[in-house]
Amino acid sequence: MTNIEYLTSYVNHFVETIRQAGVQDIVMCPGSRSTPLAYAFAKSEGFQFYRQIDERSAGYFALGIAKAKKTPVVLLCTSGTAAANFFPAIVEAYYARVPLLVVTADRPHELREVGAPQTIDQVHLYGKHVKWAVDFPLPESEANLAFVERHIQRAVSTSKTAPMGPVHINVPFREPLLLDMEQPLPTMNILVPEIGKLAPSEEFLVWYKDLLQNEVRGIFIVGDSLQTTDGFWKFAKMVQWPVLVDPLSNLRTSIPADCMDLCIDQYDAILKNKSFQEMAVPNVVIRFGAQPVSKPLMLYLKECKPMVFMVVDESPLFRDSLHIATHHVQVDAESLWLKTDTKSSSTYTDCWTQANNIATAHVNSYMEHETDEGALAGLLFEALPDKSYLFASSSMPIRDLDTFFNKTTKDIQLYANRGTNGIDGVVSSAFGVQTALNRPGYLLIGDLAFLHDLNGLIVSRFHHSDMTIIVMNNDGGGIFSYLPQSTETNYFEHLFGTPTGLEFSNIATMYNAQYNAVHSKEDFKEALAEEKTKDIRIIEVFTNRQVNTETHRKLWAAISKELDSVWKV
Amino acid sequence: MTNIEYLTSYVNHFVETIRQAGVQDIVMCPGSRSTPLAYAFAKSEGFQFYRQIDERSAGYFALGIAKAKKTPVVLLCTSGTAAANFFPAIVEAYYARVPLLVVTADRPHELREVGAPQTIDQVHLYGKHVKWAVDFPLPESEANLAFVERHIQRAVSTSKTAPMGPVHINVPFREPLLLDMEQPLPTMNILVPEIGKLAPSEEFLVWYKDLLQNEVRGIFIVGDSLQTTDGFWKFAKMVQWPVLVDPLSNLRTSIPADCMDLCIDQYDAILKNKSFQEMAVPNVVIRFGAQPVSKPLMLYLKECKPMVFMVVDESPLFRDSLHIATHHVQVDAESLWLKTDTKSSSTYTDCWTQANNIATAHVNSYMEHETDEGALAGLLFEALPDKSYLFASSSMPIRDLDTFFNKTTKDIQLYANRGTNGIDGVVSSAFGVQTALNRPGYLLIGDLAFLHDLNGLIVSRFHHSDMTIIVMNNDGGGIFSYLPQSTETNYFEHLFGTPTGLEFSNIATMYNAQYNAVHSKEDFKEALAEEKTKDIRIIEVFTNRQVNTETHRKLWAAISKELDSVWKV
Repeated sequence: MTNIEYLTSYVNHFVETIRQAGVQDIVMCPGSRSTPLAYAFAKSEGFQFYRQIDERSAGYFALGIAKAKKTPVVLLCTSGTAAANFFPAIVEAYYARVPLLVVTADRPHELREVGAPQTIDQVHLYGKHVKWAVDFPLPESEANLAFVERHIQRAVSTSKTAPMGPVHINVPFREPLLLDMEQPLPTMNILVPEIGKLAPSEEFLVWYKDLLQNEVRGIFIVGDSLQTTDGFWKFAKMVQWPVLVDPLSNLRTSIPADCMDLCIDQYDAILKNKSFQEMAVPNVVIRFGAQPVSKPLMLYLKECKPMVFMVVDESPLFRDSLHIATHHVQVDAESLWLKTDTKSSSTYTDCWTQANNIATAHVNSYMEHETDEGALAGLLFEALPDKSYLFASSSMPIRDLDTFFNKTTKDIQLYANRGTNGIDGVVSSAFGVQTALNRPGYLLIGDLAFLHDLNGLIVSRFHHSDMTIIVMNNDGGGIFSYLPQSTETNYFEHLFGTPTGLEFSNIATMYNAQYNAVHSKEDFKEALAEEKTKDIRIIEVFTNRQVNTETHRKLWAAISKELDSVWKV
Repeated sequence: MTNIEYLTSYVNHFVETIRQAGVQDIVMCPGSRSTPLAYAFAKSEGFQFYRQIDERSAGYFALGIAKAKKTPVVLLCTSGTAAANFFPAIVEAYYARVPLLVVTADRPHELREVGAPQTIDQVHLYGKHVKWAVDFPLPESEANLAFVERHIQRAVSTSKTAPMGPVHINVPFREPLLLDMEQPLPTMNILVPEIGKLAPSEEFLVWYKDLLQNEVRGIFIVGDSLQTTDGFWKFAKMVQWPVLVDPLSNLRTSIPADCMDLCIDQYDAILKNKSFQEMAVPNVVIRFGAQPVSKPLMLYLKECKPMVFMVVDESPLFRDSLHIATHHVQVDAESLWLKTDTKSSSTYTDCWTQANNIATAHVNSYMEHETDEGALAGLLFEALPDKSYLFASSSMPIRDLDTFFNKTTKDIQLYANRGTNGIDGVVSSAFGVQTALNRPGYLLIGDLAFLHDLNGLIVSRFHHSDMTIIVMNNDGGGIFSYLPQSTETNYFEHLFGTPTGLEFSNIATMYNAQYNAVHSKEDFKEALAEEKTKDIRIIEVFTNRQVNTETHRKLWAAISKELDSVWKV
């Protein structure tokens, strides 16, 4: 065989194995060394093929797709710092348990570590932040085809095995990089493994069922990143414990009407109150998914240390930063949503529902009367149409989502990057989710996070999208105003506030986006009511950091006061 | 001592050690976990303190400062993906041998690997792309002060020792993160090492001097990243060999008038000609610094394999991707610029000068008559004022710099990122160099590279700058048109050209920059003549990728033809 035939067979095997392994989406960054794979993917049928010029944004775009689809996405780039730009998204994918197949083209061995251009040490480039990494052989022998097939299959399976995550395939190519474009794809049938699910033992289930049946002071907490939530509400309705739902659990939406009372979405507010805290101490807490966003909830659990704090987590590296877990149940969450005898609601559960209703009333009144970021965020959440989705940036938006997103029977999906809570890559992640879900997308984001990933908008130059971006422009880092360091007034604004004075109407023009500048609540309502006429819409809301902090604090005080009137001893 | 006293002592020791080690510049990204260090640096006298919101851009900004100053710069961020965003700049710094002191704040040990927010595994985060990495202890004992002092001193020395490069200090902090701002800096005197220079042996020098004295077919090649070039021309004038100067050697500018003839800057063009190639085969090549940008030069050397190809490089991992080095002389380059008997010019040297003059005449005529990117770049280079500096992006700008920047006695400094040749972080690097040199800066960049690092402009919101940015907007990846893959016309534009259709007038408005849109050579001349009135000026030149490729090829053919007329046998 000639070199071009070897190369063509090699990359054809590569893409065909990926296709047969069930991967559908390819995110590619242009570059020279990756040419053979780029051509092979482009000419193969059966892939969705996306392009992005900024590799950092591309990484997060792929992450968004994989997060929404819960299945691996290929992320492809050339050699050099291009690959290093993937790193933030890979780290986020690792901790958020999002499956990515990171494919980096590399120089051949004779050009490594000899000062050749655009050559870095890509072997194990991402260190401990991928689940598996492999350095592929050069395409110069038929013997390598079996290697390619087996190792790609292994990479895909590894990324899909719970806990899911990114894997790295480094592929060297020697020039010339051209293929025989006529050579047909290989006829092959790859080994696709049956991946089992972690199931609990019979002994455990006996104990567990007993707990569910007899405990009255039990609560469920459901966090981010479960593989599915199907069947959860049916289960919860039988057990009749209050369910504290993190917004990212996707259990605050599409709630069956007869489970609305069980759903506690205001725990962040009500657990700031001492009287309620004391009354509500649980004996048993069972948590599914990641740790919730809410800091008051975390502080409360840490203080009351429930007798049983069961973390259900498919990873041996289970998540318990509070060091209060008494049981780690390393099984698939679904396997614990069992048929059990239906209980009637307990006084304990009713108290949670009552407190939740009190907080909800205050939050609704707040949204009606206040004009700060939180109130506006609440208006946005109310306005979200059925069968849409919202992506919330880290920092303040995810917290406003936690506080102001009321539980609903509407079908709205909620997303955020909570693997590492970065404000980087948010725009790209949101576009990735939008692409995967094919639903109208809404992104709630602050000015710094939007600025950080403006390049996330570049995908809209290559691919259709349907995205409304609400930028809360408070000119700087809003969240820092809530932290103790805000008291150092000499340095605070300089080091933490970091106002840039930038605004985004020009970005809207640059990207041919629909744009509204919003300076008041009325403006905002009008903007939300306005018809969307372009792929991207940017609603820039000018707010004030100081006011935000103050009115948020006022809300919490009012809720606390009313809770005191009910539960203060 | 109380916790706040421990913490304050710890960070005060930290910054005072850094100050005494001679570090002057701090680039900080806002974040919470890094608060103690941010405050300690901010309140300490004697630092230049810079802020950037995008950590990727911050990394390259710090790299630019360190590259220009050839001394370490602190790069500080909070925990999480912030640190991962530094990775591209760190990789570039590692290969370009730029000293950086990367300081990442981290969560304390009890919050690591337990699912705590914004926590990733930061120990050895940058893998093999830093020279040294250390994980610091928590600030809870006086015993740690000696550790802090000694390890920072060690980190600074490591980054400064040839070959210079980045080091990583990971620093965990436990809440609360507030300092006692009144606590004075410690009185201390750190150990500052005397770092020696690698000097050649006496035996080697005897052989080397003999070579210089007796060889007539010798050439010098000078590449990027020498610590100094002082003394080089005096030496070259004695030896009288032709000197092939890469634009980044900084030997194409500030040339003593009586050395202009020795300086060969058109080797890229003349070595494309077979007749000249055959005539010019050298017996001895001595290269100082990195491998040059020019591909024809590399191909030529690989083909003619000089009897002696001496690479002078301070690193055991010397750079020779051609595998043709016969001698690796691991010494400080300066130590080889010896006093030797002054020779008279040889016929061999004269031939190089003659060919260089031929090529220069064509290039000058090209600049006068053509209107493509190269010709316009040439006009820009001519227009650069004395005591300015130019940063060239990777991809086409660095190649146009190589072809169209004529050697000059003017004092102009030339920079580019050639560690890994990425098109990422270019804007930030240019701003970093500008800040360090405090000279009027010029940046020549393509549309994709500009788009990639638009966030590099954010520093201009916090710090004064003097920058003229010339964006060659050919709507996509221009360099790919020169590669073999451009023949696959079905896929080429989709995979490699990747036109975004974006233009940058809106960015100019957003950043309050002076702006010119240039559609012709006349426009460009006018724009260059226009007075600069703002901190940033953007001159956007709309060009055509196809035309660029064709006219460049015409130039090379014309030069080759005339060289044939002189040397064709």
